[in-house]
Amino acid sequence: MIRIGILGYGNLGKGVESAIKQNPDMELAAVFTRRNPQDMVIRTKQVSVLSADELAGMQDKIDVLILCGGSATDLPVQTPAYAGDYNVVDSFDTHAKIPEHFAKVQEAAASGKKTAIISVGWDPGMFSLNRLYGNVILPEGKDYTFWGKGVSQGHSDAIRRVEGVKDGKQYTIPVEAALEAVRSGSNPELTTRQKHIRECFVVPKEGADLKKIEAEIKNMPNYFADYDTTVHFITQEELQKNHSSIPHGGFVLRTGVTGVDKENKHLIEYRLKLDSNPEFTASVLVAYARAAYRMNQEGLYGCKTVFDVAPAYLSPLSGEELRKNLL
Amino acid sequence: MIRIGILGYGNLGKGVESAIKQNPDMELAAVFTRRNPQDMVIRTKQVSVLSADELAGMQDKIDVLILCGGSATDLPVQTPAYAGDYNVVDSFDTHAKIPEHFAKVQEAAASGKKTAIISVGWDPGMFSLNRLYGNVILPEGKDYTFWGKGVSQGHSDAIRRVEGVKDGKQYTIPVEAALEAVRSGSNPELTTRQKHIRECFVVPKEGADLKKIEAEIKNMPNYFADYDTTVHFITQEELQKNHSSIPHGGFVLRTGVTGVDKENKHLIEYRLKLDSNPEFTASVLVAYARAAYRMNQEGLYGCKTVFDVAPAYLSPLSGEELRKNLL
Repeated sequence: MIRIGILGYGNLGKGVESAIKQNPDMELAAVFTRRNPQDMVIRTKQVSVLSADELAGMQDKIDVLILCGGSATDLPVQTPAYAGDYNVVDSFDTHAKIPEHFAKVQEAAASGKKTAIISVGWDPGMFSLNRLYGNVILPEGKDYTFWGKGVSQGHSDAIRRVEGVKDGKQYTIPVEAALEAVRSGSNPELTTRQKHIRECFVVPKEGADLKKIEAEIKNMPNYFADYDTTVHFITQEELQKNHSSIPHGGFVLRTGVTGVDKENKHLIEYRLKLDSNPEFTASVLVAYARAAYRMNQEGLYGCKTVFDVAPAYLSPLSGEELRKNLL
Repeated sequence: MIRIGILGYGNLGKGVESAIKQNPDMELAAVFTRRNPQDMVIRTKQVSVLSADELAGMQDKIDVLILCGGSATDLPVQTPAYAGDYNVVDSFDTHAKIPEHFAKVQEAAASGKKTAIISVGWDPGMFSLNRLYGNVILPEGKDYTFWGKGVSQGHSDAIRRVEGVKDGKQYTIPVEAALEAVRSGSNPELTTRQKHIRECFVVPKEGADLKKIEAEIKNMPNYFADYDTTVHFITQEELQKNHSSIPHGGFVLRTGVTGVDKENKHLIEYRLKLDSNPEFTASVLVAYARAAYRMNQEGLYGCKTVFDVAPAYLSPLSGEELRKNLL
């Protein structure tokens, strides 16, 4: 049994907890929190909730620590801090800061002879893998990534900061015509506006100026101004009833040509359609936790990404079984 | 530069030849044939065509030998025969015989300290990878593989063996309604007939009994009897004009559930749409030839499949570049 520790018990941590139950070769060893453990109730009754401070001396009880904090402030500190003592997996997703994060985690993990896998999830993660496979198979080609339909946490937060807004949720939606243009092999150059639309569901405060809210959202630089954005005003009850789940997904497409005269076109398309963004991300984290454990046993120390993990490490099946059943 | 040798100059070998030109870190060292080299003209003028016998002493001139023969009789002999002397890549695709093939190649490659990667292409190959990734992320779920629209060589051959048939081509076509049922998350149990239809274009011999040909094709066990099959009679000119390319493709789908009460559904869909089946397969072979070369340099000897190859080995980019550009 691979003994998993979870640090952080938000949506992602809860997703890891339930994903572990779907993997018979794994067990949840403990959940760690920076809050008061006494205040926290987790779903798996027989498992302890411990203070994060306890991680100072739990190395013999945890095979892999899955870090379920946020990329803004938690992971940049936590992953390097724990990678020297534990095999760790995180979902660090601030693309621009990955090189810096990698360097810090590499130093800690290598010196502690531990295995760390960072930036695991679906983007970065499965989408990155599909970009890589697409690029190496079709070196003369073009990449496209579309997101959605799904809830963007960042854009939902931006809506909620607008004056007069009580609550809100934003969906990113890929434009079907743009997807079709890519699939046709015409290699379109697509603007931001042509690729995605943004749909907002807004609960206004009582007496708020709806026209003003709508205009402020639609003209918000970076977040909405470059997109065709629609704003719907709804009640808190409607938001609760119809928009409380956290779906997401998207598409990675690679189009390219082969042949003596580049006469043959090819399309590689990878699509995710997810009812729960955090639970799917958690499921990917758990599979890579298995890889971290096994790679560490083979002496593959240091910081890794999905690019460095041979797919077989992700599966509980043996090489023989994999070749027989899945190849 | 990685120096590539090609053994076998059919559609696949020609595809490898043109794929090498799309990869600036590779060069074609020589094409080897079991026929008389004098009788063979290849597209790359400055490169030698040599007898396969020359492979006995070319170890210092070839970094990776790509075996472009067929799975029925060529590869079962050739891959074990050359894997002790060369890093090799093949596209062995007889699923049921992969374990046996693996064992023979493993013995040769391990004792020669070479790296062999077998069963590379898209199925087995990229489809296998997507089955594995889908299974490890969504352990409670269901796999679906659909093929086409594309030309099935085996079924086209079967048509041509029917009495009264001069020439013919068969397309395997996935049933759109079945794909949609899978995407809906309803986990349908699909019969052979529900998943694919078979469309045949047949050139009859002069005076042949068309009704008899059609009946014989539609009732052919294994090949057509379990499918809804349509038969079109056309002229040799029409076949030549409209059906001389070799498109293929297909879909790998994984549907599964997550959550405490398995309440959230997820769909992972991988799709290929290929103008040229052999050229795409060749492009995958060339990427894995790079991996074989690099893995061999790192001492990773023996027989491998796509499951054993960390994705980063496929790319000419460094780890830093990959993390910066594709993660």
